Amino acid sequence: MKNHLLCAINYFIMAQEDVFKKLVSHCKEYGFVFPSSEIYDGLGAVYDYGQYGVELKNNIKKYWWDSMTLLHENVVGIDSAIFMHPTIWKASGHVDAFNDPLIDNKDSKKRYRADVLIEDHLAKIEEKMNKEVAKAAKKFGEAFDEAQFRATNGRVQEYQAKWNEIHERFSKALNDGNFEDLRQLILDCEIVCPISGTRNWTEVRQFNLMFSTDMGSTADGATKIYLRPETAQGIFVNFLNVQKTGRMKVPFGIAQIGKAFRNEIVARQFIFRMREFEQMEMQFFVRPGEEIEWFKKWKSTRLKWHQALGLGNEKYRYHDHEKLAHYANAATDIEFEMPFGFKEVEGIHSRTDFDLSQHEKFSGKKIQYFDPELNQSYTPYVIETSIGVDRVFLSIMAGSYCEETLENGESRVVLKLPAALAPIKLAVLPLVKKDGLPEKAEEIVNMLRFDFRCQYDEKDSIGKRYRRQDAIGTPYCITVDHDTLKDNCVTIRFRDTMEQERVSIDKLHDIISEKVSLKNLLKKVIE
Amino acid sequence: MKNHLLCAINYFIMAQEDVFKKLVSHCKEYGFVFPSSEIYDGLGAVYDYGQYGVELKNNIKKYWWDSMTLLHENVVGIDSAIFMHPTIWKASGHVDAFNDPLIDNKDSKKRYRADVLIEDHLAKIEEKMNKEVAKAAKKFGEAFDEAQFRATNGRVQEYQAKWNEIHERFSKALNDGNFEDLRQLILDCEIVCPISGTRNWTEVRQFNLMFSTDMGSTADGATKIYLRPETAQGIFVNFLNVQKTGRMKVPFGIAQIGKAFRNEIVARQFIFRMREFEQMEMQFFVRPGEEIEWFKKWKSTRLKWHQALGLGNEKYRYHDHEKLAHYANAATDIEFEMPFGFKEVEGIHSRTDFDLSQHEKFSGKKIQYFDPELNQSYTPYVIETSIGVDRVFLSIMAGSYCEETLENGESRVVLKLPAALAPIKLAVLPLVKKDGLPEKAEEIVNMLRFDFRCQYDEKDSIGKRYRRQDAIGTPYCITVDHDTLKDNCVTIRFRDTMEQERVSIDKLHDIISEKVSLKNLLKKVIE
Repeated sequence: MKNHLLCAINYFIMAQEDVFKKLVSHCKEYGFVFPSSEIYDGLGAVYDYGQYGVELKNNIKKYWWDSMTLLHENVVGIDSAIFMHPTIWKASGHVDAFNDPLIDNKDSKKRYRADVLIEDHLAKIEEKMNKEVAKAAKKFGEAFDEAQFRATNGRVQEYQAKWNEIHERFSKALNDGNFEDLRQLILDCEIVCPISGTRNWTEVRQFNLMFSTDMGSTADGATKIYLRPETAQGIFVNFLNVQKTGRMKVPFGIAQIGKAFRNEIVARQFIFRMREFEQMEMQFFVRPGEEIEWFKKWKSTRLKWHQALGLGNEKYRYHDHEKLAHYANAATDIEFEMPFGFKEVEGIHSRTDFDLSQHEKFSGKKIQYFDPELNQSYTPYVIETSIGVDRVFLSIMAGSYCEETLENGESRVVLKLPAALAPIKLAVLPLVKKDGLPEKAEEIVNMLRFDFRCQYDEKDSIGKRYRRQDAIGTPYCITVDHDTLKDNCVTIRFRDTMEQERVSIDKLHDIISEKVSLKNLLKKVIE
Repeated sequence: MKNHLLCAINYFIMAQEDVFKKLVSHCKEYGFVFPSSEIYDGLGAVYDYGQYGVELKNNIKKYWWDSMTLLHENVVGIDSAIFMHPTIWKASGHVDAFNDPLIDNKDSKKRYRADVLIEDHLAKIEEKMNKEVAKAAKKFGEAFDEAQFRATNGRVQEYQAKWNEIHERFSKALNDGNFEDLRQLILDCEIVCPISGTRNWTEVRQFNLMFSTDMGSTADGATKIYLRPETAQGIFVNFLNVQKTGRMKVPFGIAQIGKAFRNEIVARQFIFRMREFEQMEMQFFVRPGEEIEWFKKWKSTRLKWHQALGLGNEKYRYHDHEKLAHYANAATDIEFEMPFGFKEVEGIHSRTDFDLSQHEKFSGKKIQYFDPELNQSYTPYVIETSIGVDRVFLSIMAGSYCEETLENGESRVVLKLPAALAPIKLAVLPLVKKDGLPEKAEEIVNMLRFDFRCQYDEKDSIGKRYRRQDAIGTPYCITVDHDTLKDNCVTIRFRDTMEQERVSIDKLHDIISEKVSLKNLLKKVIE
């Protein structure tokens, strides 16, 4: 049994890596995500959304937007520009502290993130340790007790001690922002450059992650501005505008969806970490002292939003932060089980009055709220929910991608996307390309196309057409056959079960509507 | 009579300027558009959309997106990144030819666009000419024949000749890209710097309008990339990806909505010309030789899209281009009558195979389409429809803004927005804040809020609340009074007519739905 389990786990790990590669290629092959500028051999860590990807992405954004602004009457939206006054990024701390530690190898002239070099080194030690365990498990078979082995085996103990020591020094150096210690750790670990193979390293230097550009042109010169590295500051600097013109009363929130940009040196894992990405952020302004209560409320509301998608509640978990940023008094991540492990898709932070106070200080404008109930003015505290559109997109694709073996021995790839988010809601397929079936099918498309995104397809066998719709996650296929012309009924085929049902054309609208309605999905969030 | 007419015209011209100022301030006061980074004293020619502005903008985008991708089964969307490979902008011609001619005044050290200096000079001549006409009209009263006066009056003739001569030299210099001639024209017209008052000008120099930034960081240096000045190129470089993975057959189109950036030196007229703006572009790929037919079709379809909004068909006109860009064989603008005159809101261009051929040349990849019906490969020709989201937003705000005098002598400001695009669809207002009316009102909000964006308001008199909803363009106000608790009926008040009707609560959904449904608006486009 244990052996089987282990095999299954090993298989699972291999399969997961394999699945991720397949997922990336599926995204390209079926028009979800293309590498940017592909005909020019691409642009690092930048991606384009294809014809199905853009629909899925738009549906995700609408689901979030409506869940914020329709479900909460005290949350309103804004859309602030990417370009902002450069002093804003002084106030927010990004000019001074939004840095990565970089190190060059003098022989290969290649540049690396110092922290990533050490992380990779730690991962290698872990891998060696796991191999020892796996080897022993194979050897001892059912008699193997992993916990005991790990606690007593000399070699494993040695790896563990080494890992602990490096990890401790690493965490300390990062927390202290001590670049000399980081470099010393790289030297002590004898980390070599993967290209040159040497340990001939430069100093570690700070590299700011913001993209900058020059705006305007005067005889005196242009203004250096930044591409925003987060959308949140656009909300903070509009706090007074929205509060006053919208007559908002604390507690209230401001939501925003928009692009942000970070000049990541090591961008990885497909659309998980990109240089250009999209955020959905909401800042919720509360009375000082009430922030922890609201933090807990939003933490729970946000998890429900993810879980309502139906990808499996066990694929999500909280990761509460133990070490907090200096301005935060509570923080948690919502993590999703990606093919490469549990990873953050959303952050919920109690940011105190840090941001508003900083903008008050740097702008010289008073940024306070007069609370009519308390009859006093104060700087509101802020709960932030911050989510990456692209990460949610990836979590949904990863959670939906299935390879299945069919009864006839063939296999199918199916995207079991949440129906309300699927790019195409139904495909209408005439069984044959003659006898008036295409015309009847077009009639059905015309009847439904204003309510649901439809696709008409008459090419290839019906089986092939089902496979194509499975691959892009279309929840319903409607087949028009010769009987349809007589009984006004069609066959509706359900993506996930592959079951088929004969239904009247008049009932199609209601059957489809129930499952694909965003309204019903939204209701699940507040259940 | 004629005198009255002239007064009315004069009044109209003044009023229009006045209206524009009022509109800009209304946009700020009611949460539609805020100057960006306002607490930091703003950032030139950049604006943020407030809580109502973002909803209107999102509705405009959805109206366009659905009109492209739902009404045409051969048009699909994409969402390509802002960052693209820099060679793309060599291929498109933007690196070499996307320039403004700039000139500095040596005394004031101020920089100007040379063409704008000349345009302003031409406008001044025109103004003087019109003043002569207006003076004569006043003098001669009803006997005045404007056409004859213009044709015979010596002074008017003199102005006209001067205007013609300058305009001809100006057009020629611009077309030839001859900067020396531009400068000579500035000298010959004796144009002075508005600051220093002198004619001490530098040479005219080219200034590229693209924003650039540095991506990545290697020991060898970073890559200089550009913020896209248009979204169209993201479509062209994905032509093959979409055609192949979407199994598209020519003719077909690719639609995209996204941000674009231009470092305008003279940015003007509120959100009409911004440095950061949003485009909705569609490239429609056709067989060579069929492009003019398709150009005409899209020209007409696009006008219908605008007119379906119901702002008045007379406010739109075509402006066919006589002089075409070297790659185009037909081009037209759709203009809207803004408070500052008829201005372009959309361009429709027949771009031949210029873009795809350029990308084939610069990327070295073959970019052709195999046409199974013709059994041959070719580079498709392209019809482009290109529209500025912000300009449509402005056209809708300008076309909807009204000041009305009410029967009781009071006045109201009302935004007669197309109901399907209004930020808030209905407001639910309890007549008084007691006797269970607020609870009943909340009940109605809860019944409707998933289908329509609702607002609940219980503060101030009912009249004041109507005014507030008028000012943000809410098409329906629902008033809950004491009778409601007995008869389950409410008063529905219509924004434009201010008429009120007593209706059953059960009927509210259908009444509101009919007018605010995007589906019904879309149907008008294909009527």
